[in-house]
Amino acid sequence: MRWCRFILEGRPSFGIVENDSVIPVDGSPFGNFAKHKKSVSLESLALLVPVLPQTFYAAGTNYMDHVERMAEMTGKSINPPKAADIGYRANNALIGHEEAIVIPKDASEKVQYEGELVVVIGKPAKDVAPESVDEYIFGYTIGNDVSERTWQADDRTLWRAKNADTFKPMGPWIDTDVDINVMDTIVRVNGEEVQNFKTNNMIFDIPTYISRMSQYMTLHPGDVIWMGTDGVGTNIKSGDVVEVELTGIGVLRNPVVAAG
Amino acid sequence: MRWCRFILEGRPSFGIVENDSVIPVDGSPFGNFAKHKKSVSLESLALLVPVLPQTFYAAGTNYMDHVERMAEMTGKSINPPKAADIGYRANNALIGHEEAIVIPKDASEKVQYEGELVVVIGKPAKDVAPESVDEYIFGYTIGNDVSERTWQADDRTLWRAKNADTFKPMGPWIDTDVDINVMDTIVRVNGEEVQNFKTNNMIFDIPTYISRMSQYMTLHPGDVIWMGTDGVGTNIKSGDVVEVELTGIGVLRNPVVAAG
Repeated sequence: MRWCRFILEGRPSFGIVENDSVIPVDGSPFGNFAKHKKSVSLESLALLVPVLPQTFYAAGTNYMDHVERMAEMTGKSINPPKAADIGYRANNALIGHEEAIVIPKDASEKVQYEGELVVVIGKPAKDVAPESVDEYIFGYTIGNDVSERTWQADDRTLWRAKNADTFKPMGPWIDTDVDINVMDTIVRVNGEEVQNFKTNNMIFDIPTYISRMSQYMTLHPGDVIWMGTDGVGTNIKSGDVVEVELTGIGVLRNPVVAAG
Repeated sequence: MRWCRFILEGRPSFGIVENDSVIPVDGSPFGNFAKHKKSVSLESLALLVPVLPQTFYAAGTNYMDHVERMAEMTGKSINPPKAADIGYRANNALIGHEEAIVIPKDASEKVQYEGELVVVIGKPAKDVAPESVDEYIFGYTIGNDVSERTWQADDRTLWRAKNADTFKPMGPWIDTDVDINVMDTIVRVNGEEVQNFKTNNMIFDIPTYISRMSQYMTLHPGDVIWMGTDGVGTNIKSGDVVEVELTGIGVLRNPVVAAG
């Protein structure tokens, strides 16, 4: 099942995607919901981020080729993470499918995409064993962890490097029935493939992350965990269109514009 | 005016504190609201965190004595922040006034308090000049940035050092009419004063932080910014009671228990 979110009669509403149509629901996929009788055309809708998390988690560095190539790029030694220590991103930066990534006025040319798998939590998770983690996952969506590399290298935190407004496209929907073991993550800029890796080829897998997180914190329905990217991106600029495809989920597409 | 939040008839509700009474409202202080005719006794209420932010910001290191004493504690050189780079905390960790701080099973004895001023945003803020920042502030509340120092030193991120469940007491209410220039931050453990500093003696003040943040991101009504602490704390343990007083706002009090 695919869940999306959009504006219906002036208010955010969840809906179920079926081919080219969306069936709006009253309520939420994380609680009770009732389907409307009348569906709407998917094409007619401006999609919102499929969920607004209470806490926005991100694994950060979680693929070996990314570790090696970031070390190369920064001239630092190769230093893979020793444990599944989760990090954070910020809700202000979230935008939906087809919304514009806005490059800040004083950003360098090193604004880059990162195609990522996003896990969406379905029920409260505390002290969960790795083998039970699947029960707490609602589904998966797609993220583009847009990053300004000079700020990422120089600032004390990742606040503007990773969390400037519009730097976190997420969507187009949450898919509840995919197999991440056969999934590829593919990024295209203006139709040309620039990134392609096995989605589940992670340093620490999803059960390891969620089980460890849940020993210290409660994960809540609608919380999202961005699982990191492999390789490193290339620069994007005003006029580009970035597509992140996760095979089996779909394509998250966003144009790039310069700040006005 | 003082705004609190509590459970009324099974649902979270905002209310206005007047002496020993609370007047519940329908709606929210960040939008439209209507006062109830009947007030309730403040003492009878279990207070919730006064607001659940969309994004939970934290300045982290923002007082010179804290910089110097953390350097002393960790054996590293004194390294004050060069710019007002904001950081983050996580909503899962928030608890209200009188709720228990739970020390995780495998925490070291170095679990410590940090008394902090919390700024609550009142309206969407983007590209705000320092001299206009006051217009975007709804009010102030109190935070206790509980920290496990061995995890803070060793983990790749601050996920469990700062964001374990219950590590972020906030409250008891938001005060909209205080003067932070005459405010003291005082922490007491079991009634004994252990921290006392001028609240507004910051390295980067609130206008500097919010103006700089707003150049890159939109701050939203209800977002909170924890402004950091001065000095360093002492260890707290099961059975202790920690009080953070900000003169003019009130006292945030939380007992400490060990994980069961």
